[in-house]
Amino acid sequence: MITALAGGVGAARMLGGLLGAVPPGDITAVVNTGDDTVLHGLHISPDLDTVMYTLAGAINPETGWGLAGETWQVMESLGRLGGITWFSLGDKDIATHCYRTQRLSEGASLTEVTAELFRAWGVGIRALPVTDDALRTRLQLVDGPEVAFQEYFVHLRHQVAVSAVRFDGAPAATPGPEVLAAIAEADTIVVCPSNPVVSIGPLLAVPGVLEALARRREDTVGVSPIIAGAALKGPADRLLRELGWESSVVGVARWYAPWMGTLVIDESDADLAPAVEAEGVRCVVAPTVMSTPERSAGLARTVLDARA
Amino acid sequence: MITALAGGVGAARMLGGLLGAVPPGDITAVVNTGDDTVLHGLHISPDLDTVMYTLAGAINPETGWGLAGETWQVMESLGRLGGITWFSLGDKDIATHCYRTQRLSEGASLTEVTAELFRAWGVGIRALPVTDDALRTRLQLVDGPEVAFQEYFVHLRHQVAVSAVRFDGAPAATPGPEVLAAIAEADTIVVCPSNPVVSIGPLLAVPGVLEALARRREDTVGVSPIIAGAALKGPADRLLRELGWESSVVGVARWYAPWMGTLVIDESDADLAPAVEAEGVRCVVAPTVMSTPERSAGLARTVLDARA
Repeated sequence: MITALAGGVGAARMLGGLLGAVPPGDITAVVNTGDDTVLHGLHISPDLDTVMYTLAGAINPETGWGLAGETWQVMESLGRLGGITWFSLGDKDIATHCYRTQRLSEGASLTEVTAELFRAWGVGIRALPVTDDALRTRLQLVDGPEVAFQEYFVHLRHQVAVSAVRFDGAPAATPGPEVLAAIAEADTIVVCPSNPVVSIGPLLAVPGVLEALARRREDTVGVSPIIAGAALKGPADRLLRELGWESSVVGVARWYAPWMGTLVIDESDADLAPAVEAEGVRCVVAPTVMSTPERSAGLARTVLDARA
Repeated sequence: MITALAGGVGAARMLGGLLGAVPPGDITAVVNTGDDTVLHGLHISPDLDTVMYTLAGAINPETGWGLAGETWQVMESLGRLGGITWFSLGDKDIATHCYRTQRLSEGASLTEVTAELFRAWGVGIRALPVTDDALRTRLQLVDGPEVAFQEYFVHLRHQVAVSAVRFDGAPAATPGPEVLAAIAEADTIVVCPSNPVVSIGPLLAVPGVLEALARRREDTVGVSPIIAGAALKGPADRLLRELGWESSVVGVARWYAPWMGTLVIDESDADLAPAVEAEGVRCVVAPTVMSTPERSAGLARTVLDARA
């Protein structure tokens, strides 16, 4: 049994790789909801959907988000009305948000709705929102106000400096009903190569999660999202630096060390393996760029072997 | 200056006719919002949209609701997810609801959002939701529970008997900010041939509207939605009967008599003109079926002449 801590694109590929190694029923993903937003009245859960669409084989391979073969009727009409269109929502994708929003309004929990959606999309892993409560990542801009995650990530294209990150709602949030057990009972905990600050950070901010993880330190294997000092995608490297951390596999090891026993780093960072181990984290060097399904599967095998 | 009390399809055609007689800036429509619903998180205002789409020349002429040339990507995808699809929402139409919902969530009033949407659609009349407060028509079924309007009208296709109608939220609602002045200051008040119970009824239920109308009784001209005992469209005839009223122009005259001085009835009901007048309502006989824009324009001229 594997429990993976997951953000969006990198996590989706890691989970795809794990699916090549173990049956879907053996995989649980605890997924970030700090990116969630309500726009046009629709409850949007970008990380949950990226995982779902990717594992369903329906993701747009060019963008890494959204659906392949999308149409854009709603956005085009909304643009003509002068509505908000910087957050692109394809028509088929909107159906997912309509379903989620309606079910939530009927009293279903996000955990329940997520299970329904994954089932409808034919995705066999168990995906657990880290919490059913509102959890919203907010970033303080150096030259501007505090903004919501999607404002930073999509509207401002993360091309702005950040001085602080906080997770609104986290102190009062409780972990989703199956989350702590999924962490306690897994054979291996996998930390996907997601943004440590804004993808894995919100998971750790939900009271109880960090404590549960710390008890599984020896069984926890992470994959560094930083390769040769940079993020493959997104602002993880810049965010780490802006918040005073080193943007390297050593910085990642230090960030995760209190609760992660092993870190897999890319071959290009092999010379930093001793520095990682100096942080008290066992280091495994392997190819980590998941540019093809085969490479994702290879990385998954490395991760599962790393713990044994 | 004309102020029209409006529901959906019949009102939209009547307003189209009036636009042939007077400039758009001289027309105010006070529109029913008792049909409004929130579905998939989207705030849907069917009567406002039917008026807007019709006057924009964009309505689907075959259904009388929704947009011509619609696409259905969202609904098709939602159906595959097992979502609610009995309330058909086209993709372009969804953009309208997205815009409205987002603006309402930003704190705009329904009156403001309606003005923005009508402007974006190039419709020059002033459309006023009867209230910015929540107003929801609910129907008690003879053989079932109390249901929301769209559940009755669309899901059950109004093929069920009703024992009572009420307007949830009406007692606490206040008229939209320009509504009472629009009634007080118009030269003529036109009561469109809309369903008296569930289209005009909600307007009258908002405290202050009926009183404002009663002061304009001599300047108020209605068009009967009942022709030869039946409604052209929808359940007006059945609802009138089920609630104990006569489904005829006489029943309509009696229903509206406290505040409407003149009623235009169809030629096919000419023999009932004396009975209408016996209710204390001046009666004008004319062709009232708005099957073409020319007939709508002709009816509009009749209505404006009727008051003079």
